Amino acid sequence: MAILVAVKGWDPAPWVERMRARLPGRDIRAWPEDAGSGGDIDYVLAWKAPAELFSGLGNLKVIFSLGAGVDHLPPVDRHQDIPVVRVVDPDLTDRMTEWVVMQVLLHHRQHLAYAAQQEQKRWRDLPQPAAKDVRVGILGLGVLGQASALALASLGFKVAGWARSRKQITGVECFAGNDQLDAFLRRTDILVNLLPLTNETRHFVDYAFLGKLARDGALGGPVFINAGRGATQVESDLQLALTDGTLKAASLDVFEHEPLESENPFWVMKNVILTPHIAADSDPESLSSYIAEQIMTFEAGGKLANVVDPATGY
Amino acid sequence: MAILVAVKGWDPAPWVERMRARLPGRDIRAWPEDAGSGGDIDYVLAWKAPAELFSGLGNLKVIFSLGAGVDHLPPVDRHQDIPVVRVVDPDLTDRMTEWVVMQVLLHHRQHLAYAAQQEQKRWRDLPQPAAKDVRVGILGLGVLGQASALALASLGFKVAGWARSRKQITGVECFAGNDQLDAFLRRTDILVNLLPLTNETRHFVDYAFLGKLARDGALGGPVFINAGRGATQVESDLQLALTDGTLKAASLDVFEHEPLESENPFWVMKNVILTPHIAADSDPESLSSYIAEQIMTFEAGGKLANVVDPATGY
Repeated sequence: MAILVAVKGWDPAPWVERMRARLPGRDIRAWPEDAGSGGDIDYVLAWKAPAELFSGLGNLKVIFSLGAGVDHLPPVDRHQDIPVVRVVDPDLTDRMTEWVVMQVLLHHRQHLAYAAQQEQKRWRDLPQPAAKDVRVGILGLGVLGQASALALASLGFKVAGWARSRKQITGVECFAGNDQLDAFLRRTDILVNLLPLTNETRHFVDYAFLGKLARDGALGGPVFINAGRGATQVESDLQLALTDGTLKAASLDVFEHEPLESENPFWVMKNVILTPHIAADSDPESLSSYIAEQIMTFEAGGKLANVVDPATGY
Repeated sequence: MAILVAVKGWDPAPWVERMRARLPGRDIRAWPEDAGSGGDIDYVLAWKAPAELFSGLGNLKVIFSLGAGVDHLPPVDRHQDIPVVRVVDPDLTDRMTEWVVMQVLLHHRQHLAYAAQQEQKRWRDLPQPAAKDVRVGILGLGVLGQASALALASLGFKVAGWARSRKQITGVECFAGNDQLDAFLRRTDILVNLLPLTNETRHFVDYAFLGKLARDGALGGPVFINAGRGATQVESDLQLALTDGTLKAASLDVFEHEPLESENPFWVMKNVILTPHIAADSDPESLSSYIAEQIMTFEAGGKLANVVDPATGY
């Protein structure tokens, strides 16, 4: 009944400690030092753990991904029979919602223009549309996308969402599947990308894609906001779109290669708000509690939440 | 049954047109050109109209203030028997809520620090408290204050409010009167000022006042946000507080003298986000509809909304 913490690039010790505090008496180990033979391990808490690790765990019951995405793990189909849980706890969801709402408001309320005016000591009001005349589109309607959509709708924005499969969200127009993607983009002034990284979404957002966004909107040009995964965007296309007017502006929290190299043009683009992958930097204490609760639920015969579907990969 | 548009510094013609479109057949006039003798005027739509104007209007029934505040009008007690309506329409409320939510999120999510890092091409994440550990305080719990308080509470912030009289708002801790002001300030990390300008609130926010804000908060220092009226703050005190660390940062939309002179130190303070009185720049179309509806309600024997209390002056 052992639990293994298998993280790469992070110190496993605090994770081991946090899990011990929450599940007293359990055998909790850190990979690779004290993984042992592996045959007695029931649960793995994984962040960028290598594929080899999993092959030795004959008794494994659940993999907990320490992040909302699972693109850091070996392909899910290699361990199809073992559920992979994406750790999307309420704290992470709240933080993502804050960041998305803030970025949408920054573009809606023309923060970049007002900040430039402050630098020029210029007192001038700009024409300001109402939120009801600004169309926000959420790409990806999982737990995070739904929370952002509802928060933005409650502020009065005209919110739609797109997902692979049909969703129902009160007050949010839902588009589904590849057939409806163009219609979704054509009605969108501010696009928020919260898609997971899968084979299908890699480099999904390219120049042609961005060119489909609404050009008749109240803000004078479309805006792209990415808080999902960097590799879903083609960065050279995004830079071209931000330079030639295809996009008015962008807010980017994620990039194909992180940390972003200092030569990357995004740093100095005046129409880009850049943050260092902090949109939903979750609290490890909160994640640990969430995982401990899931383990106890599972052992009591309950259902695991946010289990990855091997067919879609998220 | 005439309606008089009495505005100073604005062109009255579009207001006359908008009211004619909404109340066809009515006699709608612009001051001073076609005010006439004034004896047949029932309603005034006023912005910075002089006191003399009102003395000639023997038949006046309602004064509509074209703004959420009435400090631009002659003292209310001179025409105590005539109701003064503050035009706080839903559009204005929504815009104010957007601006307040955006500014609170900017400070909560450390936007100034991240913007500086972007300029330095520096990729580094900063410790980020959860919203539930950040205490927002709303000074003034009228229509605008209540809407902001509810929106911030729904994002997870710990929200309290202070008003002269006791209010009840679900999910918001309400403080009332001078006796409870210090307790309110001592538990507040981010203070949002939405007070009207009255004799009691003029220069209300001074150095001693700002020194009472919480210094043990998760953000490392208190923040002041003003979207009410500039003259409620002592600007030299505010500048001192922003320089000596009494305040961590501020967002200011209103100033004692507007437009802000180019020599004013606020323009160049790195911990100040400055906007040119645009927080709740409302849509004249929407205000006009709101006034026309109020007139029709009033004439049908209904109750006027947002009538100024002569005792408090707001």
